[in-house]
Amino acid sequence: MVRNPERRTALVDAAIEVLAREGARGLTFRAVDTEAKVPPGTASNYFTSRDDLLTQAGRHIHVRMTPDPAEVSEAMRAAPSRELVATLLRWLLRRVAGERTGYLAMLELRLEATRRPELREALTEAVRAELEANIAFHLDAGLPGDADTVRLLHFAMTGLLVDHLTLPDLLGEDTAERLVGLMVDRVLGG
Amino acid sequence: MVRNPERRTALVDAAIEVLAREGARGLTFRAVDTEAKVPPGTASNYFTSRDDLLTQAGRHIHVRMTPDPAEVSEAMRAAPSRELVATLLRWLLRRVAGERTGYLAMLELRLEATRRPELREALTEAVRAELEANIAFHLDAGLPGDADTVRLLHFAMTGLLVDHLTLPDLLGEDTAERLVGLMVDRVLGG
Repeated sequence: MVRNPERRTALVDAAIEVLAREGARGLTFRAVDTEAKVPPGTASNYFTSRDDLLTQAGRHIHVRMTPDPAEVSEAMRAAPSRELVATLLRWLLRRVAGERTGYLAMLELRLEATRRPELREALTEAVRAELEANIAFHLDAGLPGDADTVRLLHFAMTGLLVDHLTLPDLLGEDTAERLVGLMVDRVLGG
Repeated sequence: MVRNPERRTALVDAAIEVLAREGARGLTFRAVDTEAKVPPGTASNYFTSRDDLLTQAGRHIHVRMTPDPAEVSEAMRAAPSRELVATLLRWLLRRVAGERTGYLAMLELRLEATRRPELREALTEAVRAELEANIAFHLDAGLPGDADTVRLLHFAMTGLLVDHLTLPDLLGEDTAERLVGLMVDRVLGG
């Protein structure tokens, strides 16, 4: 195994591009080498198997979507309120829209996970850890609502993002930003 | 074009199986012929193109997920209440769990739609028509809440179904049934 961390990251980023563009079945070592513009055979020196490549891509997408801790600290200077919950979810919406490729690649991996137990285990752990971290963050920050509030907002945001990113014309005049506001108003009560 | 409606439906059902198992890139006329156990070349007599096959599969998944109108009439004999909304959503959950292949195939099509404008248009229309029909049904039946209630429940159910069907161990002890109850309680207010 070659251990150049920057090249490894470049290969994983290339794998994410290939996943979003071609689907999981299009993700081969050869396609990753081509996308990353490296000599043929490079990817096979960095990943033990296709499963290994898929699993590392899954972990790295979660890393790419994680906000900058300094920006989080900045945002959390505001008083904990319903409005702050809405602000944080609109920020998530913009982050995902700016990472459309990564989000679509993650959905490809979710579907590939139905066929690959090792990948399913890795993704289950990643999504569970993220949901638990979001619950802990919400409660520690004194934001309104409880653990179930965070679970419900997680499901509603997932549904909105899936609709918005796969069928961008579905919502029509109704904007994703308005729907995030609606979500917070209704879930946190009037 | 051959016009045997039963064989056409059998081919579309076979396409849905292939989609769920192999992903959109695995969906070829040849794979459909094999899955449907018909002579090679049959599918190509029924569909003008791969786009045509994908679009028809998308429409047919929505048909397969639609509940029996007689069962709907039966369920709607109950008084319109929050409890009835929860009952209807739990019914949807069971229907989708029983149609796991169809739902996974639909997610494959959603991702394929990001690459194919014709398919995207067909799916956008199908999902929009379904959401509008759900809103009209909810309001006509005098169920509690407004159009935005239905939109919000649609997003939350989509997110729950994506998590539950792609990563079945994610929720752990927490059951999808409990989360549907939570959804209705919180979205419809205490």
